[in-house]
Amino acid sequence: MADPRFFDNHGPLTLAAIVKLTGAEVGLDTGAEAHDVAPLENAGPRQLAFCDNPKMKNALSRTGASIVVATRELIDAAPEGVARLVSDRPSLAFAKIAGALYPGASLTWPMGKPPLLPVDPSARIGAGSTLALGVQIGADVEIGRDCVIGAGAVIGRGVQIGHGAFIGPHVSISHALIGDRVFIHAGSRIGQDGFGYVGSPSGHFKIPQLGRVIIQDGVEIGANCCIDRGALADTVIGEGTKIDNLVQIGHNTRVGRHCILVSEVGLSGSIELGDFVVLGGQVGVADHVKIGTGAQVAAKAGVTGNLPGGQVYGGFPAKPVGQWRREMGALSLFAKGKLRRNVSSSGKN
Amino acid sequence: MADPRFFDNHGPLTLAAIVKLTGAEVGLDTGAEAHDVAPLENAGPRQLAFCDNPKMKNALSRTGASIVVATRELIDAAPEGVARLVSDRPSLAFAKIAGALYPGASLTWPMGKPPLLPVDPSARIGAGSTLALGVQIGADVEIGRDCVIGAGAVIGRGVQIGHGAFIGPHVSISHALIGDRVFIHAGSRIGQDGFGYVGSPSGHFKIPQLGRVIIQDGVEIGANCCIDRGALADTVIGEGTKIDNLVQIGHNTRVGRHCILVSEVGLSGSIELGDFVVLGGQVGVADHVKIGTGAQVAAKAGVTGNLPGGQVYGGFPAKPVGQWRREMGALSLFAKGKLRRNVSSSGKN
Amino acid sequence: MADPRFFDNHGPLTLAAIVKLTGAEVGLDTGAEAHDVAPLENAGPRQLAFCDNPKMKNALSRTGASIVVATRELIDAAPEGVARLVSDRPSLAFAKIAGALYPGASLTWPMGKPPLLPVDPSARIGAGSTLALGVQIGADVEIGRDCVIGAGAVIGRGVQIGHGAFIGPHVSISHALIGDRVFIHAGSRIGQDGFGYVGSPSGHFKIPQLGRVIIQDGVEIGANCCIDRGALADTVIGEGTKIDNLVQIGHNTRVGRHCILVSEVGLSGSIELGDFVVLGGQVGVADHVKIGTGAQVAAKAGVTGNLPGGQVYGGFPAKPVGQWRREMGALSLFAKGKLRRNVSSSGKN
Repeated sequence: MADPRFFDNHGPLTLAAIVKLTGAEVGLDTGAEAHDVAPLENAGPRQLAFCDNPKMKNALSRTGASIVVATRELIDAAPEGVARLVSDRPSLAFAKIAGALYPGASLTWPMGKPPLLPVDPSARIGAGSTLALGVQIGADVEIGRDCVIGAGAVIGRGVQIGHGAFIGPHVSISHALIGDRVFIHAGSRIGQDGFGYVGSPSGHFKIPQLGRVIIQDGVEIGANCCIDRGALADTVIGEGTKIDNLVQIGHNTRVGRHCILVSEVGLSGSIELGDFVVLGGQVGVADHVKIGTGAQVAAKAGVTGNLPGGQVYGGFPAKPVGQWRREMGALSLFAKGKLRRNVSSSGKN
Repeated sequence: MADPRFFDNHGPLTLAAIVKLTGAEVGLDTGAEAHDVAPLENAGPRQLAFCDNPKMKNALSRTGASIVVATRELIDAAPEGVARLVSDRPSLAFAKIAGALYPGASLTWPMGKPPLLPVDPSARIGAGSTLALGVQIGADVEIGRDCVIGAGAVIGRGVQIGHGAFIGPHVSISHALIGDRVFIHAGSRIGQDGFGYVGSPSGHFKIPQLGRVIIQDGVEIGANCCIDRGALADTVIGEGTKIDNLVQIGHNTRVGRHCILVSEVGLSGSIELGDFVVLGGQVGVADHVKIGTGAQVAAKAGVTGNLPGGQVYGGFPAKPVGQWRREMGALSLFAKGKLRRNVSSSGKN
Repeated sequence: MADPRFFDNHGPLTLAAIVKLTGAEVGLDTGAEAHDVAPLENAGPRQLAFCDNPKMKNALSRTGASIVVATRELIDAAPEGVARLVSDRPSLAFAKIAGALYPGASLTWPMGKPPLLPVDPSARIGAGSTLALGVQIGADVEIGRDCVIGAGAVIGRGVQIGHGAFIGPHVSISHALIGDRVFIHAGSRIGQDGFGYVGSPSGHFKIPQLGRVIIQDGVEIGANCCIDRGALADTVIGEGTKIDNLVQIGHNTRVGRHCILVSEVGLSGSIELGDFVVLGGQVGVADHVKIGTGAQVAAKAGVTGNLPGGQVYGGFPAKPVGQWRREMGALSLFAKGKLRRNVSSSGKN
């Protein structure tokens, strides 16, 4: 699954190696080796997937993975002929396996081999593009025509940038494919690790983040924003979307086309925004939420559930803005009424 | 209007060129050419202004601009002898004209000519000032005496910094005039494009940001803040104001003297704060709001309308803090009362 | 008090010098000189402390300081034999004295002597550690084995980093001691000045920030975060704690072990979090608040008072999450009920 432009695969891992790494128990040994990891739904031959949730049982029964790690309760749902590992903590086992396959996943260069030149000789820079001083460009980077790369920007290995892009000073980009006419202002961070851990008795265990960031044509991103790359999937910013300063976008989140995200918006992981969605300043959106095309959310709202498109929302939890305003108005009247009532009852005493 | 220290004017544009660029229709051709753009109120000879709002009709009738772009309904309010262009979307036409006059407005150097030396020979650095390694200083920069410029800081062309300033590592500054004894901590972004677009059927069209950031004496700005430059006017931070980390200040906003802005405050555009205003952490303020001198706003409040000075506010929408507390208290009591009522009514059944 | 690895002491100050600096009046001259500053509780010989609050009177009476600055009302509580200075504004006097003792406290090098080499010859870098291009490493820095220091990272004088750390591109670190296996992602700011001022008629007077940041083993910090160093004490991030992007942590705050701080959390100063505390996205916590071990706070909550451990909280002000949900539900019902009542009463008219 992991894009070899960005990640070095150190596999394969034998079942024996996996057992040693994770403490899992072999349920069925087919001689398969894990060359890669993938979600149950997308996994193919030579890939390992995991299942720790009864809701995923159906996906487990249809997976194309060659190896599955699951709890004892779920393991029998695996398709015939698939190698089986039983674990009390399949998600923790999966994180450890992914970490062993991609031990340098947080790096933007092959492990132990940081770039020695400001612009790697394998990078291709298009005609008319200018690099400011202090720019660092990794191996196999491709930058199109008429781009401006600002002072001190760091572009990690394998990153692709289209034509006419503006990359501001001190921007860092890794694990990303970026379209034409994209603006990224100073200090924004594109493609670093998502925030993913598995709890364990000895603390939070890091899940290697093996996806990418895809930024489509005409996107503008303000200063000091953070867009994390996906865990196994990609984080996507749709064509023409405009993002203000200090905005956070978590792993696997997909923002539609021509959206507006005002300053200090926080999107957690695996969110889906439709097209032309507008989020006011400081709006927060909980993970896995879907917001439909054309929805507008007033500043400071907190979106905790799916919102159909084409309407205006506000408040926390976010609701249709008229309802939210009525609630605020009712509360204001109630607080005043209550005070009057206290006065009159003390008058009666 | 645009300060030539920061912006290269590629004008003038003839009416014919503007028609070609914008699709506008000529209402009156005086032979005028657009050398610059300006708001209706401030525009002078050889400048172009636009009007797309009946509320601006009075300003249109008194503008000193040589060319105006307006809707068919409004165009006749233009003063006699002023060249007239009729457009269905005057704001979009204006953005396109501004973009043609200043095509490199997002850059901190003349288009196609990035600096080749870490410190441009035309820059003047005062006695006793020290530059850390990796600093980049553009053309015509002026830095006063006894300043410290931290590692990797990038100071764009024409920026002025007074005496005794501290600029932290990785700070980027452009399009800005900065006073004496100003502290700017690591990673803050001063002077980049404001967040301004005109909607159009093909998406959001960028409005070139042609103003500046003015930071007066004794201001302190925390780490990873963002202060955008003005669109046509300036963004101003008044003398002695102290700003914590991760604060956002939008274009054209004017912060008074000796204000305190606690971490993660978000100010959108065209706000006016008086002097000695205190905004608690995570406060958000909507655009065009005025907050009076000495007003204090409790953490997390959302300010959606003007607030008179000298009082303490809280909540969202922000209101006098006593009222907000009564509402919160009333809600808490009401929720408890409602539960008791449910119990007794179920007892009656 | 101030760690000499990070701060250069320019003392001592005689009583006469302090009087000249602050306008304080000598109550008792013992010939003592101020070699350092400290809080009343921790101050020892040759150190100066201040008292401006009747609640601190007991601490004043037991202080080990050699010099105290206090108001006329409080000064007599000082222990016998301690030099006494009387001031109307002891906290302002203290800030001025601290500033005179440590005039370059915001710098990461001795005043006037910025580093001249990318890696100071006195720095020690462990085996297997790799430095990317553009890294700057100050005097007396110690970096352990198998660390990765990303492009353009700036590590200030005296900073210690353990084994197996990952420091992302454009990170700046100063005044900090960092453990093993710590990840700090791109653009985070560790150790800069806290946000501390004393009000005065001529504006806000900066309190020199003389503490450190301590980051224990296994901590992960996201991109573009800010962790300020302590004022006189330390800011501490406990072992195994995971911090998402764009998080603010103020001076003197102590985060426990294995906590989770989701994106855009804002912690002000002198907060204490127990272990395994979880704070959702955009949560804000007021200064001096204590949150107990295992407490979880839902996204966007505002914590204004202490929260016992082991429970889930939400809302603003934060309260047990069930109570908060009941209040939100009651408000929603009430707003609808009120509307119905309006309808029926208009029906009666």
